[in-house]
Amino acid sequence: MDASADPPVAGLAAGLAAGDRRTLARAITLVESTRPDHRMAARALIAALPPPPRPTLRIGLTGTPGVGKSTFIEAFGMHLVGLGHRVAVLAVDPSSPRTGGAILGDKTRMGTLARHRHAFIRPSPSQAALGGIGPRTRDAVTLAEAAGFDLVLVETVGVGQSETEVAGITDLFLLLLAPGGGDELQGVKRGIMERADLILVNKADGTLVAEADRTRAEYAGALRLIRPRDGDPDGVPEVRCVSARTGAGLAEAWSALARLAAHRRDTGAFARTRDAQAEAALDAALAQALAARVRADPALSAAWPALQADVRAGRLSPEAAAEAALARLRP
Amino acid sequence: MDASADPPVAGLAAGLAAGDRRTLARAITLVESTRPDHRMAARALIAALPPPPRPTLRIGLTGTPGVGKSTFIEAFGMHLVGLGHRVAVLAVDPSSPRTGGAILGDKTRMGTLARHRHAFIRPSPSQAALGGIGPRTRDAVTLAEAAGFDLVLVETVGVGQSETEVAGITDLFLLLLAPGGGDELQGVKRGIMERADLILVNKADGTLVAEADRTRAEYAGALRLIRPRDGDPDGVPEVRCVSARTGAGLAEAWSALARLAAHRRDTGAFARTRDAQAEAALDAALAQALAARVRADPALSAAWPALQADVRAGRLSPEAAAEAALARLRP
Repeated sequence: MDASADPPVAGLAAGLAAGDRRTLARAITLVESTRPDHRMAARALIAALPPPPRPTLRIGLTGTPGVGKSTFIEAFGMHLVGLGHRVAVLAVDPSSPRTGGAILGDKTRMGTLARHRHAFIRPSPSQAALGGIGPRTRDAVTLAEAAGFDLVLVETVGVGQSETEVAGITDLFLLLLAPGGGDELQGVKRGIMERADLILVNKADGTLVAEADRTRAEYAGALRLIRPRDGDPDGVPEVRCVSARTGAGLAEAWSALARLAAHRRDTGAFARTRDAQAEAALDAALAQALAARVRADPALSAAWPALQADVRAGRLSPEAAAEAALARLRP
Repeated sequence: MDASADPPVAGLAAGLAAGDRRTLARAITLVESTRPDHRMAARALIAALPPPPRPTLRIGLTGTPGVGKSTFIEAFGMHLVGLGHRVAVLAVDPSSPRTGGAILGDKTRMGTLARHRHAFIRPSPSQAALGGIGPRTRDAVTLAEAAGFDLVLVETVGVGQSETEVAGITDLFLLLLAPGGGDELQGVKRGIMERADLILVNKADGTLVAEADRTRAEYAGALRLIRPRDGDPDGVPEVRCVSARTGAGLAEAWSALARLAAHRRDTGAFARTRDAQAEAALDAALAQALAARVRADPALSAAWPALQADVRAGRLSPEAAAEAALARLRP
């Protein structure tokens, strides 16, 4: 954001209430900024937001490179705007030097959807944003919903902790696989399978139809075995075939998601999850603010490495070390 | 612990250095106590402990009721003491009113092992121990190792968060299954499959041998599909059949665990994991101590529910609410 062009908060709030996509882009840039004055403005903006005009659904989406994620989002997004929804796509990309940033920082990969007036696509935020990816993306979701986007897709490349963070801010989690990944293992990170609410095998078209269905059956079978029904009111997740290229299965995939969301709204699980997510985010933010205060304390930060070494060597229990640390904290 | 019989710390430390089992039991009771004077004594004891006389291995063990966990631990433990190891078994049981405490609070279920002079069995701690199950069990592991028990089995019934806590204080995680659980789903909680380093199908004896082997093959196949090799230097976990009743497969199960431990010692992963566990325990203890200080603050605890409600409703971002909370904290 150009510092000389800081928009007044009231103007941003009004633009969001009007559903203006350009204002939404500027508002997200504001909440991503680490500048102290921007942070104050971002806080004022969020406090001034209109409530979402429609019930909203937040969908996390992941899949390893090569499964056709962009093509799927473009096709699925166009299907959803065709049903009258307004669709925002937020890309979460750790963009660490390690990964090189697998999500392109532009909208060209979803050109048709990006141009649709009922869609909004936000590329990956710049790395090392204040407070990590989660908090900023959470704010971006809030802004998109205030701007009238009732379906928010949060896309992640599936590196490091990003899925955990995305699962912590979304209502449903969608995993995209490619046909034939069975024996080769698709590189899906541990824990994703366990989080997915719906698994889609993409590229079920042309010569890959049979292979996609075989992959679907394999995963469905494995999930029945590995993923217990216990504690999961929705049972094991459905595994379905889709083709982003031909559009086959997209309507059914949406029906499955919508049914699941409706079921969870009926049981109250939907609201409970959102409340728990909000409270967990608050707890995490408080812990982070406290930790920052602790790290800034000169006496404590000087003593910390020795305390860590004592705990590692078993000379101090973690609780004793923590009490020793707090005792050094300036009052 | 009888308050009138508090043992002096020096005496406890000396008794542990001599490998005395009765002293170990008293020392664990001391670290489980919430009394302030006991906490100070526990801290002094841990600081006074001798280092473990031998390299140690901490093994987490879980399995749903009915898989024969006690019988397995008895047979496996007897096999291990036969190899010259000294074996401590620590039971972790959330003992919530919800579960009724599934682990018996006595040693009768592992009578032969409990009587062996190179074994030590500690029943489940009383519930609501200070700081949760994890920290207290971590201390108990430290005490057992100081007393010369080089193999520490931490057993959990697999309820709630207990496996996560056990995984956070052990080097290897062992999952016990029963034959034929495939289609019925064994009630193993989400995430356990993903944490297991070795999976054993118990009761592979008599008429159940074929069924156990079928179950083994099913899980091995499912794990190859679901659990990715990516990021796991040891590949997918082995699935093996054992019989605690006949002893079949116990030697091979131990070989598999020992091989894995040796491999991780060679690669440095073993030490890295322990260091990371210690640092995570310290971070958690500091966060908990800070949170306790925050909760004790009258101005903040009065304001907290309103801040939670604002975050739930989207009127405040978690960070803004956390900053507002800290601003209310007494200096």
